[in-house]
Amino acid sequence: MKILLIGASGTIGSAVHRELGSSHEIITAGRNGADVTVDITSPESITQMYNTVGKVDAVISTTGATHFGALSELTPENNEVSIGSKLKGQVNLVLLGLNHLNDNGSFTLTTGVIMDDPIRGGVSAAMASGAVRAFVKSAAFEMPRGIRINEVSPNVLVESIDKYGPFFPGFDPVPANRVALAYRKSVEGCQTGQTFKVY
Amino acid sequence: MKILLIGASGTIGSAVHRELGSSHEIITAGRNGADVTVDITSPESITQMYNTVGKVDAVISTTGATHFGALSELTPENNEVSIGSKLKGQVNLVLLGLNHLNDNGSFTLTTGVIMDDPIRGGVSAAMASGAVRAFVKSAAFEMPRGIRINEVSPNVLVESIDKYGPFFPGFDPVPANRVALAYRKSVEGCQTGQTFKVY
Ligand SMILES: NC(=O)c1ccc[n+]([C@@H]2O[C@H](COP(=O)([O-])OP(=O)(O)OC[C@H]3O[C@@H](n4cnc5c(N)ncnc54)[C@H](OP(=O)(O)O)[C@@H]3O)[C@@H](O)[C@H]2O)c1
Ligand SMILES: NC(=O)c1ccc[n+]([C@@H]2O[C@H](COP(=O)([O-])OP(=O)(O)OC[C@H]3O[C@@H](n4cnc5c(N)ncnc54)[C@H](OP(=O)(O)O)[C@@H]3O)[C@@H](O)[C@H]2O)c1
Repeated sequence: MKILLIGASGTIGSAVHRELGSSHEIITAGRNGADVTVDITSPESITQMYNTVGKVDAVISTTGATHFGALSELTPENNEVSIGSKLKGQVNLVLLGLNHLNDNGSFTLTTGVIMDDPIRGGVSAAMASGAVRAFVKSAAFEMPRGIRINEVSPNVLVESIDKYGPFFPGFDPVPANRVALAYRKSVEGCQTGQTFKVY
Repeated sequence: MKILLIGASGTIGSAVHRELGSSHEIITAGRNGADVTVDITSPESITQMYNTVGKVDAVISTTGATHFGALSELTPENNEVSIGSKLKGQVNLVLLGLNHLNDNGSFTLTTGVIMDDPIRGGVSAAMASGAVRAFVKSAAFEMPRGIRINEVSPNVLVESIDKYGPFFPGFDPVPANRVALAYRKSVEGCQTGQTFKVY
């Protein structure tokens, strides 16, 4: 399959690239150093990316910025980071990508464990993931031409413990290569409307 | 208790007003004909409302506009209706209202059945509700001063069948007075971080 991977240079994205790269043709996308440049916070940029890439069989998003911080310091403004990127960025990859997907293609988005298992400082990220999960669950039933849609919800990654560890006391981190398997399940499997939890 | 009810003139809001009006002092809010004028899509308007009203014991939101329509016609633009109102409007009522709530006060927001039980045309509304649910679940653990937060997820209402009926084939509508009980449970009960499903 021809797979467009947005966020390919990231911790999860590079593991997905390793997992799927030998059996599929991967086109990488991101703001820097990828095959195609895209900023998912801009609908125009997403449309430009799809026009450049043409038809694909699968779109995988392993991106989406979020604001981490205490509820007492969460404002309408810093909450926009999560809304503009992880929420709207990923949803718009679907809305603007529908006509660029071949029949029986698939979308796979990324959420995260904290929507199910809250952590201090994670409310904005959890909110964005909850929106993406509900979007996926409903959108699956209206997808045309056999197109499927799922999301992968990873636990905190072993590879990200230096960065995020203090936010996740008592969580049992998962290795990136195990998370990457869930993306393979979404792309090559038959399921749709699902949350593939890696925890 | 002194309760600020945003969306008081609506189908659900007026039922909540009837349910709680005899045992509490209700201040109504909305864009038209309420005690206090507010447009929840504007953070400045929300701040102005709180400054006008002063301290309260409970904030109830029975508002939040959404876009209804087929996934194939959902765009980044019309999806903003749900994001700006039902999602950000309600979340910002909490973020901007925290310091205006008395100790042991409560927030109660409104979601809806279709985040759990999808309908054709409901993807944008479901997305907004999923965000609000995840926000509530996480925010509950970080609330200061004994403040609680819940959301009520109603089925389609008997009173709204003329308006929404065709979108909800086979759903068993619930009367508004039964939905209103869930708001009483949230305001007078002890629970926090909950989805009170009326279905
Ligand atoms: N790491 C974890 O432990 C973990 C656990 C659960 C969930 N998640 C979620 O998984 C997703 C990816 O996490 P990660 O740790 O792999 O992130 P990461 O290492 O920071 O990588 C993010 C990737 O997305 C790209 N990107 C960032 N902003 C973008 C934008 N506006 N438009 C296009 N591309 C953009 C980045 O490349 P450029 O900077 O070049 O654009 C990079 O390729 C996030 O949503 C995160 O919340 C992560
Ligand atoms: N009715 C149902 O069957 C049903 C079922 C499940 C969930 N829900 C959800 O419950 C909520 C209320 O539904 P409803 O049927 O009661 O709605 P409704 O009858 O249309 O009433 C909406 C209320 O919100 C106010 N409002 C609208 N936009 C506002 C804004 N930007 N700022 C401030 N106030 C605003 C309206 O007054 P003004 O116009 O004067 O501002 C009115 O008081 C919605 O989120 C809906 O999705 C409804």
